[in-house]
Amino acid sequence: MSDSPVIALAKDFISRISVTPEDAGCQDVMIARLEKLGFKIETMVFEDTTNLWARRGTEAPLFVFAGHTDVVPAGPSDLWHTPPFEPTIIDGYLHGRGAADMKGSLACIVVAIERFLADNPDHKGSIALLITSDEEGPFINGTTRVIDTLEARNEKIDMCIVGEPSSTHAVGDVVKNGRRGSITGDVTLKGTQGHVAYPHLADNPVHRAMPALAELAATTWDNGNAYFPPTSFQIANLHAGTGASNVIPGEFHVQFNFRFSTELTADDIKRKVHSVLDAHGLDYDLKWTFSGHPFLTDHGTLLEAVVDAIEEVNHKKPELLTTGGTSDGRFIARTGAQVIELGPCNATIHKVNECVKVADLEKLTDMYQKVLEKVL
Amino acid sequence: MSDSPVIALAKDFISRISVTPEDAGCQDVMIARLEKLGFKIETMVFEDTTNLWARRGTEAPLFVFAGHTDVVPAGPSDLWHTPPFEPTIIDGYLHGRGAADMKGSLACIVVAIERFLADNPDHKGSIALLITSDEEGPFINGTTRVIDTLEARNEKIDMCIVGEPSSTHAVGDVVKNGRRGSITGDVTLKGTQGHVAYPHLADNPVHRAMPALAELAATTWDNGNAYFPPTSFQIANLHAGTGASNVIPGEFHVQFNFRFSTELTADDIKRKVHSVLDAHGLDYDLKWTFSGHPFLTDHGTLLEAVVDAIEEVNHKKPELLTTGGTSDGRFIARTGAQVIELGPCNATIHKVNECVKVADLEKLTDMYQKVLEKVL
Repeated sequence: MSDSPVIALAKDFISRISVTPEDAGCQDVMIARLEKLGFKIETMVFEDTTNLWARRGTEAPLFVFAGHTDVVPAGPSDLWHTPPFEPTIIDGYLHGRGAADMKGSLACIVVAIERFLADNPDHKGSIALLITSDEEGPFINGTTRVIDTLEARNEKIDMCIVGEPSSTHAVGDVVKNGRRGSITGDVTLKGTQGHVAYPHLADNPVHRAMPALAELAATTWDNGNAYFPPTSFQIANLHAGTGASNVIPGEFHVQFNFRFSTELTADDIKRKVHSVLDAHGLDYDLKWTFSGHPFLTDHGTLLEAVVDAIEEVNHKKPELLTTGGTSDGRFIARTGAQVIELGPCNATIHKVNECVKVADLEKLTDMYQKVLEKVL
Repeated sequence: MSDSPVIALAKDFISRISVTPEDAGCQDVMIARLEKLGFKIETMVFEDTTNLWARRGTEAPLFVFAGHTDVVPAGPSDLWHTPPFEPTIIDGYLHGRGAADMKGSLACIVVAIERFLADNPDHKGSIALLITSDEEGPFINGTTRVIDTLEARNEKIDMCIVGEPSSTHAVGDVVKNGRRGSITGDVTLKGTQGHVAYPHLADNPVHRAMPALAELAATTWDNGNAYFPPTSFQIANLHAGTGASNVIPGEFHVQFNFRFSTELTADDIKRKVHSVLDAHGLDYDLKWTFSGHPFLTDHGTLLEAVVDAIEEVNHKKPELLTTGGTSDGRFIARTGAQVIELGPCNATIHKVNECVKVADLEKLTDMYQKVLEKVL
């Protein structure tokens, strides 16, 4: 039995070794298909990253599929049952690095657009694709810079589906209609180093800081809301000491991360952390690294279309969640666009023996096509 | 001007490169001098360490001078103003590694004994020297094993002066009449590693443990007593985290050290630490390393003799302290002997440009000689 159009295209993508920031020709394959459909192609190269902006039509509303051609490294190849860059179907599952995250989705997107346009050549609005090759890396030369470019020329995205693997047990059981914000603090707490035999001549920054850190860890930052779990504070790394058991450390390094809901802003968090550290009379340097605002698409045309499309295919509504890590959706949502993440199951992503159910890719193609029919 | 007997002998010792556990012939120099005085010599070799036990007389009371011939490494030689193993007198100070810790004291001991015996050939009791070459190292094959040997044959030390540099500004301004105990705990606190985006699937051992550690740091272990400062708890080292800002650590390593007074025992401390960790419901492994019981010589013949001898030389009584690091005195005190540490100023010990005041070594010789006259 020969492969369906979706599976054949997914295999083509997987066979290209596009570890971040490499694209390895994936975007050229997409471009060849999209040009035949009348898309206007723009390749945007920023530093080491190749991005694709392809648009068909000039009218509003502008509906976008967003995704990435890059994949994480394969990891230890001897733990793979199949070669990671040789797409292989076993027992109804397509195996290979990127099968689920997210070369499978890219194939579904292209085929869904082809089918939609075959039936609806004169649809309203516009369709575009925003494809990057740095989503798995430092995400500084990818989606965020394409968005900067579009905003600078006032090209406005109304709705966007990100093809990231959002599902848990079956494709479409979960869509992500928002994501928490993320911000990291690196604090160096200062004391005075000394010999443990002379504690009065030293000032142990660990002892000084622990009550403050315990207070931060015990704080209820918010209670979340209908769409977001409560804001979470986690100490990810800490270190103090010279290694010797008789030396009181002079510095104490702590790195913590917040995943925060729409109930708080990054500035709220910064203010509160500083007030706790200051209230404990600590001497410290604190450096913040901001990774993204929270976003939420809790109503609107796109959300309704996605929910209805999934229900038509699955005979079951999806669950709407905002849990999990950050995604490029945050860069698109900041323009005011409605953003939903819908893709295959994520159980094997970033692991060895990454795979996706062949039948799920067919269903996902149907879902994408139905969304296009509903919104355009 | 030619060197005095004390300075000439101190220079001989300093010129020998006896970095722990090397003795470099220092003990042979001592043996040659002591044999002439009628001492019976026993060289006790344990593993890499050469120890000297030299005794004159068989009667009680047995008075001992204890010390070490080994020194810490010189450190960066370009920071020394004089070559570290070429003893050099500049402006009244004898420079060289070991000048203060404690080759100067060894010279004072030998010369004080020579002078005492010249005047008092028929003194009562016995004099001995307990000299090791591993005091600056792991202290496992030195004083502690000599003491084991003496105890096994029921050879009982009544009084001991340890020649460690006890003084602060002038020789004899401070004697150490005891030392705190020392015990170290290495605890591994256990949690469950996970992604910061899914805190409900992880269990951060840092968050769990901080209130317990803060409680330990805030605890008043005792209030000390007339001779001891309060028991002190210090976190010396801690570490958690993979280095990544998005991973909740699965383990948290903390090393802490107690310096404890005679108001507490090591078992008291262990019990209390376990009770705090248990009360906080922590899952942990705790390994203890015991370095020494506290000891105190707060009365008796030796203390009176030392105080009087110092007052005769300095026209001022010494201060009695139990502060500072551990010393080999702890191994001798555990036999029930009276133990006092009396030696030169410690400002430069273990540093580059270690030095000792020439005049202080002459005074220290007088003090040692006067103590011998008072106790034997």
